[in-house]
Amino acid sequence: MNKAVLFSDFTIITSNDDGNVSVLEHGYCVVSEDKICYVGTSSEDASKVASEISDEQNDVYEGKNKILCPTFANAHAHMPMSIFRNIADDFALNDWLFGEIIPREDKMIEEDFRFGHLLSIAEMIESGTACAANMYDGAKITTKASVEAGFRVQQTIMGKKCVDGKWSTDAKDVEDFNAFCRDLNSDLITRSLLVHSVYLYPEHLYPSLAELAKAYDLPVSVHISETLTELKNCMDQYGCSPVEKLNSANLLSDTTVAAHCVHLSDADRAILSEKGVWIAHNPSSNMKLASGFADTQAMEKMNMRLCLGTDGAASNNNQDMFMEMRLAAFMAKGSTLDPTVLPASRVFHMATRNGYLACGFSDCGIIETGMKADIQIIDYDCPQMWPLGNPISALVYSCGPKCVESVMINGKFVLYKHELTTLDKEKIFASTKKTMERLK
Amino acid sequence: MNKAVLFSDFTIITSNDDGNVSVLEHGYCVVSEDKICYVGTSSEDASKVASEISDEQNDVYEGKNKILCPTFANAHAHMPMSIFRNIADDFALNDWLFGEIIPREDKMIEEDFRFGHLLSIAEMIESGTACAANMYDGAKITTKASVEAGFRVQQTIMGKKCVDGKWSTDAKDVEDFNAFCRDLNSDLITRSLLVHSVYLYPEHLYPSLAELAKAYDLPVSVHISETLTELKNCMDQYGCSPVEKLNSANLLSDTTVAAHCVHLSDADRAILSEKGVWIAHNPSSNMKLASGFADTQAMEKMNMRLCLGTDGAASNNNQDMFMEMRLAAFMAKGSTLDPTVLPASRVFHMATRNGYLACGFSDCGIIETGMKADIQIIDYDCPQMWPLGNPISALVYSCGPKCVESVMINGKFVLYKHELTTLDKEKIFASTKKTMERLK
Repeated sequence: MNKAVLFSDFTIITSNDDGNVSVLEHGYCVVSEDKICYVGTSSEDASKVASEISDEQNDVYEGKNKILCPTFANAHAHMPMSIFRNIADDFALNDWLFGEIIPREDKMIEEDFRFGHLLSIAEMIESGTACAANMYDGAKITTKASVEAGFRVQQTIMGKKCVDGKWSTDAKDVEDFNAFCRDLNSDLITRSLLVHSVYLYPEHLYPSLAELAKAYDLPVSVHISETLTELKNCMDQYGCSPVEKLNSANLLSDTTVAAHCVHLSDADRAILSEKGVWIAHNPSSNMKLASGFADTQAMEKMNMRLCLGTDGAASNNNQDMFMEMRLAAFMAKGSTLDPTVLPASRVFHMATRNGYLACGFSDCGIIETGMKADIQIIDYDCPQMWPLGNPISALVYSCGPKCVESVMINGKFVLYKHELTTLDKEKIFASTKKTMERLK
Repeated sequence: MNKAVLFSDFTIITSNDDGNVSVLEHGYCVVSEDKICYVGTSSEDASKVASEISDEQNDVYEGKNKILCPTFANAHAHMPMSIFRNIADDFALNDWLFGEIIPREDKMIEEDFRFGHLLSIAEMIESGTACAANMYDGAKITTKASVEAGFRVQQTIMGKKCVDGKWSTDAKDVEDFNAFCRDLNSDLITRSLLVHSVYLYPEHLYPSLAELAKAYDLPVSVHISETLTELKNCMDQYGCSPVEKLNSANLLSDTTVAAHCVHLSDADRAILSEKGVWIAHNPSSNMKLASGFADTQAMEKMNMRLCLGTDGAASNNNQDMFMEMRLAAFMAKGSTLDPTVLPASRVFHMATRNGYLACGFSDCGIIETGMKADIQIIDYDCPQMWPLGNPISALVYSCGPKCVESVMINGKFVLYKHELTTLDKEKIFASTKKTMERLK
């Protein structure tokens, strides 16, 4: 029988669709099944809503010195890559990718995808993330694992095949994955079509990729202008920027998620703004790999739609959205010499509501009646967040994984008072350690 | 009776005085009283050393999936300012300082200094820091609190007084504090003389401050070229940079700790290098307050001596040296577009050995026989650090406060398996909350 969870007397922080972030002191929230069915300040009303759901004793979660807010949606990740964490740092990008990562990827087996993916889910949940865009091979394995773990994923589909050394699109691959997802029958999964980048995908594929995306109503997931080299090579090869190239191939729309966008021209920004493309900004990865500082202020001025991503654990080396929120704000302030730009409320909106929208989950990311119950509980009774001060500042500038006490996804606790409830950590640790050693 | 602590089978990571960072797998370490008396890979030798110290059963700390490494020394902090955490973010510097911080500082009473300082100690210990430079008023109150908490501090002394609206140096203040420290009789405390900055200290004080520092053998603690405004005003007023001004006043030496140094000329760097000044680099604060990106690569090329600081919790808003290590590396890579600069081992050396040297503790910051036992234990059996990969990369790019299991300062556990042993957290929390509300 269905029971409600009553969150009692919390500081409730949420963004809304206008990007305004509000703080509700002494807030109550009731969750039933997968949905939020009450948010407000009345203890009585909350109890009434809960008791109407079930005659049984409902679960009460006490909120003293605790924040209740939406979980994060990580809009750019390569989740199985956690098995490559800390193996090749402080390297030039080419040495890193071609010398260290790709040779290992070539030797990956099914188990590596599964447990690398689950390890990332564990890390993400422990740092308040409930949803991620996973751009990586092994879609069926990882999607199944996501559903088992109770974690939301926008999974990229490859949608192409190689016959006699020649790549072409492959509608069968899309249909096959669609059927697989229908069988899973989970509302935790959305899909997108991988168009990796202008530098990895040959031009002749673009028209049929655009058709495929249209035919199956798939958002496009793509890397854009991550490095100066990428930009220069595209200019040399096509006489235009990656944004212009993808736009002329009809591969940009208001469901597209474009990762990085570090090196954009005004013309690029105008296109991305006009098309309503989601920009997944990856501050840690862009700094660590020395790609540069994305100009988020210029993007904001053009009303571009920004969300945040961690990139893979091999180039970050964490998948912690608190870090990305902070660094997004820091990078914007440091590079413009203006401390007022990209304030805490703005990056919080990017990390929550915008991330969910970019990943295709339109009913998540806001604490509001009728929305899906993707919720995190922050315990601020700890030295790093004390005294709380402005709760929004505290979330962005002081909080971290240590303060994440519980995480609920789709109405189910996947982290309950610091314990993961859906994952076998020992098994994940043993398997991923073995993988790292085998791939050395 | 004295007992030894035997750390058994750890991954031991330490820097040495050449700046080389080494990793010892299956390492053992024995601590007796305040000192390290064995480091090596022999279980037998370690046990022998321990048993020679005491016939009693010695304490054994097991190291499976754990790292043992030096604690951090935070070379630039304003510790009581934790009471101003998250009260005024995303503000322009002047609005922040003169509109929000100074009006509150004017109303501070003794208890605010004491508990704000203790709150910072709690936060620092929980994030692996055992030592900090504390540049703030209330020297006696906070020094006493540091010793009670078992935490190392380099405390600045004001050394000046205001009579009839005119400031002059005050040898009596220095002597008074020296006597106070003699009575405390603790080797946890070192001292320095505050020369806040060229913009806050009038020129006529410089000669007597230099004399005072010399007479009492005191290092100088100073802010240098944090903002472009500071640099410009100094050029306008004195026709030279802050570095040149302080140098001509004989206020720079190889014990000086100069915080920030964001805006330096080649000539400035030549002076700071030649004098052997310690540079306390504050990446989080410099980005958040939009001061700019300090050019650590240019400093490295000039063999300048770099350490790291968090600055105050009111402008960061954490005092987490893991964050500062990561951001120092990220900032250097991002701003030079070279991912190989300021590698993990280098920032680790800055955060450990160099920080201790800058704070005047020459026998700390290295895991080596004969050194003081300032040690942290990292539990990497957690998703954010798994699988470990390169342990030095893991410490800098993946670790965080959540993974800090224990901290020993001067041979005594101040954090033991996640529990603070010397601090009354409830009392600190209650008092600092009251303070924040009173100072609103």
